[in-house]
Amino acid sequence: MRMTDLIETKKAGQALTEGEIRWMIRGYTDGDIPDYQMAAMAMAICWRGMDGDETAVLTDAMLHSGDTVDLSAFGPLTVDKHSTGGVGDKTTLIVAPVVASLGGRLAKMSGRGLGHTGGTIDKLESIPGFRTELSAEEFLRVVEEVGVAVIGQTGNLCPADKKLYALRDVTGTVGSLPLIASSIMSKKLAAGAKSIVLDVKIGSGAFMKTEAEGRRLAETMVALGRGHGRNTAALLTNMDVPLGHAVGNALEVREAAELLQGKGDSDLKTLCVALSATLLSLCHGWSREEAEARVLDCIASGAAFETLCRWAEAQGGDSSVLRDLSLLPQAAHVRPIYADRSGWITHMDAKQIGEASVVLGAGRVKKGDPIDHAAGIVLAKKTGDAVSTGDVLAWLHTNQPDALDAAGQQVLSALTVGEEQPAPQTLIYGIVR
Amino acid sequence: MRMTDLIETKKAGQALTEGEIRWMIRGYTDGDIPDYQMAAMAMAICWRGMDGDETAVLTDAMLHSGDTVDLSAFGPLTVDKHSTGGVGDKTTLIVAPVVASLGGRLAKMSGRGLGHTGGTIDKLESIPGFRTELSAEEFLRVVEEVGVAVIGQTGNLCPADKKLYALRDVTGTVGSLPLIASSIMSKKLAAGAKSIVLDVKIGSGAFMKTEAEGRRLAETMVALGRGHGRNTAALLTNMDVPLGHAVGNALEVREAAELLQGKGDSDLKTLCVALSATLLSLCHGWSREEAEARVLDCIASGAAFETLCRWAEAQGGDSSVLRDLSLLPQAAHVRPIYADRSGWITHMDAKQIGEASVVLGAGRVKKGDPIDHAAGIVLAKKTGDAVSTGDVLAWLHTNQPDALDAAGQQVLSALTVGEEQPAPQTLIYGIVR
Repeated sequence: MRMTDLIETKKAGQALTEGEIRWMIRGYTDGDIPDYQMAAMAMAICWRGMDGDETAVLTDAMLHSGDTVDLSAFGPLTVDKHSTGGVGDKTTLIVAPVVASLGGRLAKMSGRGLGHTGGTIDKLESIPGFRTELSAEEFLRVVEEVGVAVIGQTGNLCPADKKLYALRDVTGTVGSLPLIASSIMSKKLAAGAKSIVLDVKIGSGAFMKTEAEGRRLAETMVALGRGHGRNTAALLTNMDVPLGHAVGNALEVREAAELLQGKGDSDLKTLCVALSATLLSLCHGWSREEAEARVLDCIASGAAFETLCRWAEAQGGDSSVLRDLSLLPQAAHVRPIYADRSGWITHMDAKQIGEASVVLGAGRVKKGDPIDHAAGIVLAKKTGDAVSTGDVLAWLHTNQPDALDAAGQQVLSALTVGEEQPAPQTLIYGIVR
Repeated sequence: MRMTDLIETKKAGQALTEGEIRWMIRGYTDGDIPDYQMAAMAMAICWRGMDGDETAVLTDAMLHSGDTVDLSAFGPLTVDKHSTGGVGDKTTLIVAPVVASLGGRLAKMSGRGLGHTGGTIDKLESIPGFRTELSAEEFLRVVEEVGVAVIGQTGNLCPADKKLYALRDVTGTVGSLPLIASSIMSKKLAAGAKSIVLDVKIGSGAFMKTEAEGRRLAETMVALGRGHGRNTAALLTNMDVPLGHAVGNALEVREAAELLQGKGDSDLKTLCVALSATLLSLCHGWSREEAEARVLDCIASGAAFETLCRWAEAQGGDSSVLRDLSLLPQAAHVRPIYADRSGWITHMDAKQIGEASVVLGAGRVKKGDPIDHAAGIVLAKKTGDAVSTGDVLAWLHTNQPDALDAAGQQVLSALTVGEEQPAPQTLIYGIVR
């Protein structure tokens, strides 16, 4: 077999065979196929796409390119959750303790933030002492004791995907449905959970800009999960607006903890209830109504908040900062941004809000950059809200006062104030199961 | 500027700016842009194409990536010729002495054969003593004395094209009109001739399979030549059938010499006259009729044959083998291939004939392989000829008798014998000027 022939096949719009795809992924992982050939192939896939069979084989080949996690010791209730990435998305901090309180077993690997999107690992590390690098034994013991543990990507899981993703990132080939779907699903399948819920973000702050694109991605990923015998569902959700009000690590932990203490932002709570109920329906077989009722009760009773505290303690974190949120890292400088006209907020550019939070120190421009857990933005107004000249639109939190002017300008330019009240935002466009 | 942004621009179907293309070619030549990014870009260009302005800038950027040849000392009559590659194409061996005899100055760099297509350098080297590596001074002196010199690709001409072509060859990105056109024309323009004729081959033995494809390539290349102030024309010619009867190095030298001695194959002679007359019209401004009459006279008088002999001598070759063709390298084994049925030859696969000649030793599978100058195939019958069972279809020449069976099978399978006389083949589909 020759890689140039495979590239020519895909370039001509023909499907690759199972044998060809497995040979290619093995050769690329082993270093026998050079980056330049894989880059040409990735662009040919962006051009010509892959059919369902090809995408399934590609996913399976990447899944089996390294180790896989065996969670069978936890029985049938192992669950996992994945978001395609957004601004202000702290749902894992809420969904994980809810689901764990209700019998689910969430042994999750998660990522760090990059660019305008945050990462769960960074958010958790804003709890003093919280360790996201655990040994395999510690990881499984925490899951056993608390029902949830979250660690960074570790070990030799999906090395083919790791290598291919790094290449796609520098060759303009990230944007391809089969490549995105196989990258996400190979990692989720390797992580071993029996039930998986996917949160496919759509809108200005997300990679998928339209509902149609998002739906195709969701359908492809759900089919891949089902094909591997996993209970899989995907929610299509709005990322035209940041989720909740806080953007930035400690600020998001505060918002999540407040929600579990009963003080909740309506869009954030709605989405967390939907994600949790979907996961619980998948793993327990509960009806949608039953699952939602149990989730709401679990939050209202404080059970989920107690699980959050136990989880933090089990991973070395100081849970007293969750009970007294003023103990979380605090920025030295907090500046309000005022409205310079009256009207309605008709549009927010979620990506720009995320980028402004990076300017304040909350995120990274490139991998390995340090971040400031206290930095970020708290939105006082969101799309659909009325504003009057002089109202506070947002608070900027930072330890770098030099960054305040630029970030403030960026937040202002991310907001469109119009004279007419906009139609209400849809939070959940649909569910694919 | 970031290469990923340029890749994304082209991937989205947008044109690259002049500044972007020049930055990219400079960066790639200098090694600042890695192969994997250029491979993704090449595939994106295969996908989205390039408009006329982009192709012109790409050509100019590659042309100026290294040295250029200054032929101004030879005055306004410098000419060059390029064929896109075919089977049995020995036209340079005929056109060069004709044009040189009639005042043209042909200082040409040429290539070696690879795969099913032959190369002029290999053909010339089948004349004992012929040297295709000359110093710059020797090269220009031979042009001055004889009117023609042909050497291998030399020096630092178009290093960007050299690097990009090698990359395209292993990344499935050869097949792209703007990339083909810019690769050919950057080299032709760097070689410095004032008048250029291009022979764009179309058919089973050529890269361009349809007349429409060939015409678009020809129009693009002629526009590129004109844009650089060169008199440029392109012939669109048939490569469904090998040109002439001989395929293989010494066998093709013999056929060319015989033609210049007055014994000529009709399709080969027709094409050589057309190419020569086109070049002479371009450089002298002669009418088509005048140019053709002078070319025919130059062949009939033996003047062109004498120039061929002087040319061979000037590059160190032994011209006695041209005067007595039995002195050319001869294969130890010559085997006829017989027709196993009667009818008409309705089709030949020129590429397969070329590949059979490689099996016999006349060509290379990969660069640097040695070749046998004596090996090859002489076709006794071509498309349109009537055959009876037992007629000789072709003679195989080789020094490797083990190869005869396989090559014989390949020649037989390249020929289709039908019951009806096919329509006459068109040799020259048209001219673009």
